[in-house]
Amino acid sequence: MEFTVSERMKSLKGSAIREMFKAMADPTMISLAGGNPAAELFPSEELSQIAADILKENPVGALQYGISEGNIALREKILEMMKEREKINASLDEITIVSGGQQAIEIVSKILLNEGDSVIVEAPSFVGGLNAFRSYGANLVGVEVESDGINIEKLKKTIENTPNVKLIYTIPNFQNPSGVTMSVEKRKALYEIARDNDIFIIEDNPYGELTFDGVKLPTIKSMDEAGVVLYSGSFSKILAPGLRLGYLIAPKNFTEKVVLGKQVSDVHTALLPQLLALEFMKRYDIGELIEKMRALYKKKCDVLIGAMKEYLPENITYTVPGGGLFVWCNAPGIDTLKLSNECIKEKVLIVPGNNFATDQSLVNNGFRLNFSTMPDDKLVEGVKRLGKVLEKYC
Amino acid sequence: MEFTVSERMKSLKGSAIREMFKAMADPTMISLAGGNPAAELFPSEELSQIAADILKENPVGALQYGISEGNIALREKILEMMKEREKINASLDEITIVSGGQQAIEIVSKILLNEGDSVIVEAPSFVGGLNAFRSYGANLVGVEVESDGINIEKLKKTIENTPNVKLIYTIPNFQNPSGVTMSVEKRKALYEIARDNDIFIIEDNPYGELTFDGVKLPTIKSMDEAGVVLYSGSFSKILAPGLRLGYLIAPKNFTEKVVLGKQVSDVHTALLPQLLALEFMKRYDIGELIEKMRALYKKKCDVLIGAMKEYLPENITYTVPGGGLFVWCNAPGIDTLKLSNECIKEKVLIVPGNNFATDQSLVNNGFRLNFSTMPDDKLVEGVKRLGKVLEKYC
Repeated sequence: MEFTVSERMKSLKGSAIREMFKAMADPTMISLAGGNPAAELFPSEELSQIAADILKENPVGALQYGISEGNIALREKILEMMKEREKINASLDEITIVSGGQQAIEIVSKILLNEGDSVIVEAPSFVGGLNAFRSYGANLVGVEVESDGINIEKLKKTIENTPNVKLIYTIPNFQNPSGVTMSVEKRKALYEIARDNDIFIIEDNPYGELTFDGVKLPTIKSMDEAGVVLYSGSFSKILAPGLRLGYLIAPKNFTEKVVLGKQVSDVHTALLPQLLALEFMKRYDIGELIEKMRALYKKKCDVLIGAMKEYLPENITYTVPGGGLFVWCNAPGIDTLKLSNECIKEKVLIVPGNNFATDQSLVNNGFRLNFSTMPDDKLVEGVKRLGKVLEKYC
Repeated sequence: MEFTVSERMKSLKGSAIREMFKAMADPTMISLAGGNPAAELFPSEELSQIAADILKENPVGALQYGISEGNIALREKILEMMKEREKINASLDEITIVSGGQQAIEIVSKILLNEGDSVIVEAPSFVGGLNAFRSYGANLVGVEVESDGINIEKLKKTIENTPNVKLIYTIPNFQNPSGVTMSVEKRKALYEIARDNDIFIIEDNPYGELTFDGVKLPTIKSMDEAGVVLYSGSFSKILAPGLRLGYLIAPKNFTEKVVLGKQVSDVHTALLPQLLALEFMKRYDIGELIEKMRALYKKKCDVLIGAMKEYLPENITYTVPGGGLFVWCNAPGIDTLKLSNECIKEKVLIVPGNNFATDQSLVNNGFRLNFSTMPDDKLVEGVKRLGKVLEKYC
């Protein structure tokens, strides 16, 4: 039967990045796209033992229905971690377990956005976030990201000139896709602007722990006295993404609505992933695992940047990130959507910048590279192939 | 900060049933509410071994990102099961793995419903389904359930008199909460009406396997030549609900949108639950587990009905179900919301009928009892307590 999708879903296209997964069926393909964490650091032996123990010792806790808020002991453990590692003080009625960071954004959108309401996003920004807002019919307004984060003056003007701004969406640490980290001054300024204009901030922080030099700037949530920051955390990049496990820390009155949204979305997050993360953090020091990730990603980033220096034409500029998973590149005068299609022919995947734009139909000169997924030799070979394609254009 | 929820979320209240979970913290409370499957049949030893094996042998498959459609081998296995057990013939591009049946309804609503569109639901119906529709601003129109399913004449008239009907939501087997099973004739009639009016049917079938006498009527999906049936299946009642694992079988053009909706909701369903179900079905005969459930639930239903005959006043009427988890009761002249509150004082939980109504504010004489969760002696004691409260009214 033919049918018409709802108005809210009409502007939504699939993530090109997730579509590229399919091209990965070709074993000769090298992916500098995607954002898969390094599989070699998954603590699979430990999780194997923990899963067996949980299902033996606490099968009902893992297999029966649970509460929509999420497992209480896990929420307490995360709050402890947040206090210690992010200076966030929150209580049990301010945290909800969700099925990954994507769901946090989706539920917040559902709760807050009427169709046509505006969301201010960093330009460029994470495609999954943009799509969640789009899927509720939001009007997306981009504000440029500079080397120290969102342009504050432009943000102010945008708020003045845009009706019904309900949300500002930011990834302050090692932003996806730009790799940029927002300065402390800008975090404060952003917080004050949101507070003074009664606009919620989604602070999406999947990459904050992946700092190469160990330096971490204060989270915006740690400054939040007014209750305007909705903090989204995730285990995808510090434990394993296949668990689909994240959490949203929000003021109590907002969390009540999140729990309703969660209940109507999927009742509650699968319990075994919740208990695996809890028990892992009880038995092991997750900080040690994070240290290993930092060291590995720093090394892999160095490999990628080294290859880029050697094999990419000089007019391709990029920012060397201080953490995270991505390097953002600029190819002046080049339509990177076309570039990306040429790259597929040469068996290398990159993500063209239009994916991260509020208007995906515009020509974009940016593209994103990932260094966490591929082994070192493939990182180098991938950049070589990319360089070969770029030579045709430059 | 004070805030206003979106229009679509304004009509949404939490599930009173899930709120009652909290009253269960009192160990002297007996729950005849809820719909938890019997925990003693969770195959926890088997799943413990399987989880350990998966995380050892295929850690990347369980812990890395997966595809939004869901694990291919699991989808193939479910399609095989559907063919064999439900006479549903579908292909790989017609099935999406979701995080439980609730999510299937939520995503379908997101895809199809503009705010103000109408959804026809059985009266009474499953509160989670009703809430999913409400959460997209749907206009809910109830059509009475008779002892052999939805009233077909009234359904026809309702469609004639209601603008923008996009969906008909039905639970044809051992309906929640009424316990009623729709006759084959009505299934055919319902299908033809939907087809002729270009309206999708959600056929929600979590309880179909839990037939006491082994008799199963054909699914509506098995009659679906026009592609109007969206079939929602779940592992919650045949394996374990804490896995949050279900699937939606829909025409290919619809499934494409489901995958988009899934991607934007939570990227994909957690992989370990997917692989646990797959591997369980490979190593064991899930049909044998289902047989055990049928036998246990039949026995527990008999215990409940026996106690009801002994301890409830004669004017309380009810239908004896042929399967599923619930017995629906009618208490003429009694406001069952008040009754339910009195019951809490006597330490027994029942679900008042207003929860299952399109307009929850109206006085309702129905209430739902569950027999799958409590041990036999508590089923009897719970009914005794309920009888004591009812005596005050009758």
